[in-house]
Amino acid sequence: MKKINVGIVGYGNLGKGVEKAIKQNPDMELKAIFTRRDIKEIETKSLVVNIKDILDWQNKIDVLILCGGSATDLPIQTPELVRHFNTVDSYDTHAKIPEYFAEVNKNATETLGLISVGWDPGLFSMMRLLFETLLPESHTESFWGPGVSQGHSDAIRRIEGVIGAVQYTIPRAEAIEAMEDGEIDLTTREKHLRECYVAIEAEAKKEEIENAIKTMPDYFADYDTIVNFVTLTELKEKHSGMPHGGTVLTKGITGSGSKQLMKFNLELASNPEFTASVITAYARAVVKLYREGKRGAISIYDVPLSYISPEDNESLRKRLL
Amino acid sequence: MKKINVGIVGYGNLGKGVEKAIKQNPDMELKAIFTRRDIKEIETKSLVVNIKDILDWQNKIDVLILCGGSATDLPIQTPELVRHFNTVDSYDTHAKIPEYFAEVNKNATETLGLISVGWDPGLFSMMRLLFETLLPESHTESFWGPGVSQGHSDAIRRIEGVIGAVQYTIPRAEAIEAMEDGEIDLTTREKHLRECYVAIEAEAKKEEIENAIKTMPDYFADYDTIVNFVTLTELKEKHSGMPHGGTVLTKGITGSGSKQLMKFNLELASNPEFTASVITAYARAVVKLYREGKRGAISIYDVPLSYISPEDNESLRKRLL
Repeated sequence: MKKINVGIVGYGNLGKGVEKAIKQNPDMELKAIFTRRDIKEIETKSLVVNIKDILDWQNKIDVLILCGGSATDLPIQTPELVRHFNTVDSYDTHAKIPEYFAEVNKNATETLGLISVGWDPGLFSMMRLLFETLLPESHTESFWGPGVSQGHSDAIRRIEGVIGAVQYTIPRAEAIEAMEDGEIDLTTREKHLRECYVAIEAEAKKEEIENAIKTMPDYFADYDTIVNFVTLTELKEKHSGMPHGGTVLTKGITGSGSKQLMKFNLELASNPEFTASVITAYARAVVKLYREGKRGAISIYDVPLSYISPEDNESLRKRLL
Repeated sequence: MKKINVGIVGYGNLGKGVEKAIKQNPDMELKAIFTRRDIKEIETKSLVVNIKDILDWQNKIDVLILCGGSATDLPIQTPELVRHFNTVDSYDTHAKIPEYFAEVNKNATETLGLISVGWDPGLFSMMRLLFETLLPESHTESFWGPGVSQGHSDAIRRIEGVIGAVQYTIPRAEAIEAMEDGEIDLTTREKHLRECYVAIEAEAKKEEIENAIKTMPDYFADYDTIVNFVTLTELKEKHSGMPHGGTVLTKGITGSGSKQLMKFNLELASNPEFTASVITAYARAVVKLYREGKRGAISIYDVPLSYISPEDNESLRKRLL
């Protein structure tokens, strides 16, 4: 059987995760990793190619897995690359998804581009749609964590005097329980805690930094925030993992007032590796749908589940249905 | 906007649940309930029609929701009805799904028949496929309950001297925990308990009946079974609900050995009402796919998630992705 030929664009945590995920999927083959960086700097046994040569690979690759960031990379890269390649990405700026979709769709006249596939957006989006559709009289909440938020960690690092920081988003157990019990109007503050581990310069004042964190608008001001000061060594030893996870919870009623609860939960030791596994499986779906003639931009909502599997539909029905 | 016209075939617990579920979905309209029974016996405000007249309704109904039993009703009804109507059913004899699918597919030359949609088979089947595909190096287990098993309750009622019985299937918390901790070789006995509430005749011997239950092959012999004797009044008062639920749990590793856990969980106060809600939402997908030209038999694996929603795809992407 002919393998699915994959290219990776971008070699950060996500790109490295995809490289590993492809090895877990025997029907896929990594043809090349494309990077803007000096290819000699990239440590891997895979073939590394400068991104300026990517168009030479048009006939050798079935799908590109785009592993750049959502802030600046993907909004530029995806519309360009989808003119020449099928693509899948994990674009995660929720508020800008409609315009991103439109841009990819406009350029994918001869190809197929699957956007925003990971766990949120991605699996959580699926569950939100599934749960609220099955239970029209219901309330749905998404909880994130416990896990490291890269954006919030970065925000702390920008405070003067801070030399290192890791921020954990922690869903409040009592908020999840309250929802299960039927209390549904939870505020942002009630749903999540933010716990920070911060290393600072000798000259810096703890109180001032703690205050700067706790009052930071958008990031921390609306939450109960715990700040722990630690040494740089402790930060590296105990807080360098990238765990994450979360829960989608729907509480609804049917017919005669029966209470029905649906819950989806992830506990991830490695956030980027899990996102990589999701995007890699969905790369398979992109190729299958493309071969059937599908063109344009699509989301996870457009992909029948059988398309992500390497197994044929008859066998799936027999073994798993 | 034109409503989706629905017919219900069969008016047991599931059919009644569908009747209620349709009321929660304003884009759907129940046109008629079809029954083999004397239509005067059916208590409902909906229109009830004898099933022998069903072909008169061919042009008035977009999809039939089949609510008969899997043992004897559906294997006969579905292949017959799908020759004239789009259908959706919750056929749940897992072992016979391939032949059932083939039979429906053969007859659905002009129509579309979605088979085996409920929570298991159905949502649990989706999760098993999703979880094991995203984590190729993993182990998946389905746990059922706590909930009433109708088949096991019936089996107890067939024992001489028993005048009433309800059997609860209970997943062992320690088995779920053991799986989360990485012990994956659980036996049937280790995964579930069976707890029975049994009312017996005055003359019957408790010990003999308890022994007959606990040693019953296929049903109880392979499980730890708890038997509680109760009065018929207590049985009716405390055990006449139809709660159920369960968990699909996948433990896997990615790339560098990171442990990843995926979990889906249902806690249902009414099993038939929830199954009815699932099958009703998927009836919408049947109509949409049929209008796009899809014919033959399909399973939940073939349905893109956006098709179950009354909302358009653009709005779904904006609001939920």
